[in-house]
Amino acid sequence: MSSEKINIFDTTLRDGEQVPGCKLRKEQKLAVAEQLDFFGVDIIEAGFPISSPGDFEAVQAIAALVKNATVCGLSRAVMKDIEVAGEAVMGAKRPRIHTGIGTSDNHIKFKLNTTREDILERAVAAVKYAKSFVEDVEFYAEDAGRTDPEFLARVCEAVIKAGATVLNIPDTTGYCLPHEYGDKIAYLRDNVKGIHKATLSTHCHNDLGMATANSIAGVENGARQVECTINGIGERAGNTSLEEAVMIIKQRFGGQYHTNITTPLLKSMSILVAETMGMPVQANKAIVGANAFAHSSGIHQDGVIKHRETYEIINPADVGVDQSSIVLTARSGRAALAYRFKEIGHHLTKDELDVAYVHFLDLADRQKEVIDTDLEVLYHEKIYSMI
Amino acid sequence: MSSEKINIFDTTLRDGEQVPGCKLRKEQKLAVAEQLDFFGVDIIEAGFPISSPGDFEAVQAIAALVKNATVCGLSRAVMKDIEVAGEAVMGAKRPRIHTGIGTSDNHIKFKLNTTREDILERAVAAVKYAKSFVEDVEFYAEDAGRTDPEFLARVCEAVIKAGATVLNIPDTTGYCLPHEYGDKIAYLRDNVKGIHKATLSTHCHNDLGMATANSIAGVENGARQVECTINGIGERAGNTSLEEAVMIIKQRFGGQYHTNITTPLLKSMSILVAETMGMPVQANKAIVGANAFAHSSGIHQDGVIKHRETYEIINPADVGVDQSSIVLTARSGRAALAYRFKEIGHHLTKDELDVAYVHFLDLADRQKEVIDTDLEVLYHEKIYSMI
Repeated sequence: MSSEKINIFDTTLRDGEQVPGCKLRKEQKLAVAEQLDFFGVDIIEAGFPISSPGDFEAVQAIAALVKNATVCGLSRAVMKDIEVAGEAVMGAKRPRIHTGIGTSDNHIKFKLNTTREDILERAVAAVKYAKSFVEDVEFYAEDAGRTDPEFLARVCEAVIKAGATVLNIPDTTGYCLPHEYGDKIAYLRDNVKGIHKATLSTHCHNDLGMATANSIAGVENGARQVECTINGIGERAGNTSLEEAVMIIKQRFGGQYHTNITTPLLKSMSILVAETMGMPVQANKAIVGANAFAHSSGIHQDGVIKHRETYEIINPADVGVDQSSIVLTARSGRAALAYRFKEIGHHLTKDELDVAYVHFLDLADRQKEVIDTDLEVLYHEKIYSMI
Repeated sequence: MSSEKINIFDTTLRDGEQVPGCKLRKEQKLAVAEQLDFFGVDIIEAGFPISSPGDFEAVQAIAALVKNATVCGLSRAVMKDIEVAGEAVMGAKRPRIHTGIGTSDNHIKFKLNTTREDILERAVAAVKYAKSFVEDVEFYAEDAGRTDPEFLARVCEAVIKAGATVLNIPDTTGYCLPHEYGDKIAYLRDNVKGIHKATLSTHCHNDLGMATANSIAGVENGARQVECTINGIGERAGNTSLEEAVMIIKQRFGGQYHTNITTPLLKSMSILVAETMGMPVQANKAIVGANAFAHSSGIHQDGVIKHRETYEIINPADVGVDQSSIVLTARSGRAALAYRFKEIGHHLTKDELDVAYVHFLDLADRQKEVIDTDLEVLYHEKIYSMI
């Protein structure tokens, strides 16, 4: 069996950019879009054109700029929205309109104050109208995570018939467990007539910390597009992290699936978005956090020094990180200390190491981290005098 | 069926504290331990006593201080380690020693350079020796995530026979997918003789962003202890986040499982650890991030204003957050603008809102967030003059 392509749909500039404090100026959006294109993203969701004149202009400019990726604009299932989205993406090499409506009873009743039949009609009308602007129309069934599977399947069937090319099944509130979300995708794959004409897409939110696991469960059950953002930014607790989804596909589904992402650019892409949007990434963030490849406990350092794979399942170079780092703290062991002394040019004998380790622990108990300068001082004060 | 208790094992002071930059002074550790106890944590892993004299003293002081929780000290399967750990926790009301050894072929071959039979013997010897100090002995099978299930079951059987009360099955490298980790726990539950005498425990790392999902899969398949840290800090990409695991159990397994955690203290616990350890939490962190309950897109704001459950599956008050916030940006809609004007005392008519919205969007396209002061100025310059 040959490896299947999983499309990466990046919504950093739409779901990410709508976050408090993340708003970008047009030229910043263009810079991020250009990098995303170069990075290998398949679809760039560039914005929500009806939302403001500034966003409309930005989407239009991105559409004109991007060379390879599909450029997508969001709209509600509202004619004016779709029209404006169509106009904004028109100049793209590969334009897409992303339209949709809430399908869960909660959304139908409390937000839209209507009936299931009305939702079906509005969904079909929206897709048909979008098709009059572009060939590639993605439909989102908002709050699909809490939507009755049978009704969801009916909606999917109807919009495929109306011409939808991609079906986005969002877990809008981040409510699903991985097996629940996987089952939902499998149910659609197995029960929607004409499903082979469209691509199933995941769009998972991270309110309970499971967005990535849910997206992967979706892929394992038939989804071939993953919607995600750099650093997992997005509304509330954010979206699936692009870097996590891509590296799981690469590391755990090697022969089975692949993406088009140039993974050694992951770290620089993360830095670009964090800095441009003013959204720092926490040190313990998977893949792109400052500590993601830092080892500080003695047990772990010893293992990594002997054989990298003991504690690392990803080669740091594969995601654009120079090397795994061995940080010296009070939890470090003799092996790490000897290793670092060697790195700065001092090959300690066993006796010297014993002496150095006692002084090192005393120092490390008093400060957070012991750096090379500390080791040089320690060497000259305590070891050199022994010789 | 009555709800089953899931024990929360917090390792913020051990796996968290060993992180570069996270080292705490003794009095800081005591402050965190006291709060963890008050918070309802069942087991506090206080440190790795053999690692440094400072850590030994801290574990000893925590053991003397903590009123309700079990206090646990880590050790390798090395006699001197176990002895020192035993001495450190001795003064606790409920002392526990946590000892163990690598069981994956990778660890056995590259790190320990030995054989499976030798590992079995060392595991049993370590547990027996630990039992001479305390009744409650937890055994960890390091790198269990990549350990052959049959060998893992043999190790578990042997250490239960030797007296282990808890079996910790760590996914040390954060390698597993949720169904793989769940299957591993189910296999042990179904195949280890005497398993009813011990508690299965999850200890998941977040290298691929799935620590929380893996821990929950473990619980669904028989684990009754979850090892985690506040804010998910820990070696490399960190551990399972306590706040995520606890809230998933509460929100998604209500009648089936429960924990002892006082969830309205989650946010303050998160702040205490982030500030004490100097490890800021990113804004889009689930449950405790600054934006976890912030809504900024027009579509979402409209839904939340009409009916909170449309976009929120957790009541912010349940985790100690005052209220969900409606942040005004260029992606906000009319409903949110009207809502905020009302909050500051201006009830706008439909015509006034139309005028205000155009000026608002123009302003919002130029700045990241529109605050109440901006609205007051806008009201007085553009609306008040209409009256």
